Amino acid sequence: MNIGIVGLGLMGGSFAKAVKKYGIANKVYGYARSEKSKKQILELNLVDELVDIKTLKEKSDLIVLAIPVENIISFLPNLLDIKKEQTIMDLGSTKEFIVKNIPDVIRENFVAAHPMCGSEKFGPKAAMDNLYEGKTVVLCDLEDNSEIHKNRAVKIFQEIGMRLVFMNSKEHDVHACYMSHLPHAISYSLANTVMNHEDPKSIIALAAGGFKDMSRIAKSSPDMWTDIFRQNKDNLLKSIDLFDNHMKKVRYMVENDKYDDLEEWMKKANTLHEIL
Amino acid sequence: MNIGIVGLGLMGGSFAKAVKKYGIANKVYGYARSEKSKKQILELNLVDELVDIKTLKEKSDLIVLAIPVENIISFLPNLLDIKKEQTIMDLGSTKEFIVKNIPDVIRENFVAAHPMCGSEKFGPKAAMDNLYEGKTVVLCDLEDNSEIHKNRAVKIFQEIGMRLVFMNSKEHDVHACYMSHLPHAISYSLANTVMNHEDPKSIIALAAGGFKDMSRIAKSSPDMWTDIFRQNKDNLLKSIDLFDNHMKKVRYMVENDKYDDLEEWMKKANTLHEIL
Repeated sequence: MNIGIVGLGLMGGSFAKAVKKYGIANKVYGYARSEKSKKQILELNLVDELVDIKTLKEKSDLIVLAIPVENIISFLPNLLDIKKEQTIMDLGSTKEFIVKNIPDVIRENFVAAHPMCGSEKFGPKAAMDNLYEGKTVVLCDLEDNSEIHKNRAVKIFQEIGMRLVFMNSKEHDVHACYMSHLPHAISYSLANTVMNHEDPKSIIALAAGGFKDMSRIAKSSPDMWTDIFRQNKDNLLKSIDLFDNHMKKVRYMVENDKYDDLEEWMKKANTLHEIL
Repeated sequence: MNIGIVGLGLMGGSFAKAVKKYGIANKVYGYARSEKSKKQILELNLVDELVDIKTLKEKSDLIVLAIPVENIISFLPNLLDIKKEQTIMDLGSTKEFIVKNIPDVIRENFVAAHPMCGSEKFGPKAAMDNLYEGKTVVLCDLEDNSEIHKNRAVKIFQEIGMRLVFMNSKEHDVHACYMSHLPHAISYSLANTVMNHEDPKSIIALAAGGFKDMSRIAKSSPDMWTDIFRQNKDNLLKSIDLFDNHMKKVRYMVENDKYDDLEEWMKKANTLHEIL
């Protein structure tokens, strides 16, 4: 099988490395827009060949869209004339809006996937050959795909070592909001709280595991995350409100010396331990 | 030198292991209140001998208080009759309130220390022999200690591999609030937001690095953290308000489709990268 990957940053570059590592692709073709990215992709030897969109479309059995979620939608008009047996797959962090915007003519070909893995690093240099191993991929609305495309996607994700979860795209967006989008909003807020302090350097000199963990994803790509927040707007706003209720609660308990209640509330948070 | 450690959980137990590992103590004495802890301490061989408070006081050149911050203050009346050359040291996460409550008669003996390291795990079983290595310890208000106690503390922390930072206790409490106490309030809130959802299990099944990192410290000891929030109340309330301003900001930008502003705000958070 030949695989064409559009966008070779953290997700796409790591996908290229994984399909090579597991011998899944005969040839890996890549498409990138910026000259800077192209140079890095070639230096890092991420693909067999960098090509234009037309060539990538002609040569690939599977076309993987590993670009920011807004770009996925604007890229789709390029793919309206693909053949019946060509598979398209996206790796975006939101699913409902993308699925709604897939043109009918390629709906059966388009597999909506979200590998639940990543890193705060981005760009071709962030690519690693084991990003996907042992992680979970969510496959959405597979009933809308024809067998050949569904089976191809399932097989590839299994072969690169992922655990598969199936759900509809609406449900996915709620789950992904709590597990990823809300945590990003919080982490960006925490980082900005500290960076806006009068002397962030001397404060951060004391950073230990807690702050390092809590602020890591605040280093993520603004380009990519602005798009995700836009596409999952309603779920994100709702989750921020629910989170905010808890911040109000802890503030109230501390201000009013309700330390028994505070301890109970912390114990409730501890129960996460039983699941994760 | 003989060292007596009061409380042999994560911090005290790890301190016992470190001073043994680096051959700093001839004898390590321990004091613990609960029978469960005593049993674990003996099984884990954390100290040379478990003793009562009187014996620990008679035999130790250095007495380390590794108990929750409220307990440190209530323990001090036990130590009023120590000798001039005996050092007391606490490892608590707050400093100003503790320092204010040190009785005059032992003020010169009492070194206020905060090792900026930890783990969400607690109790004797959480003890590890390298917890302190390569981490930062903040030593506060050392000008109030006599030379022998100051030098003893500095020497020990250097010998177990720590980086030393000196500041006054008031400044420490602001710094520690942003680097540790606020992140704990946030992490507990995030965990509670998810645990209060109608189906936390199926949501958490999708947890990846982001959520795992952001919720890790929500598993920390409620007993210990209730005390810390109480003792650093004013700084914590102020920091929650500043953090809350950023959560309001991200909410406003998403709700009102201000995506250019959102991207700028995320880029500002990214600058943390330059420091941490």
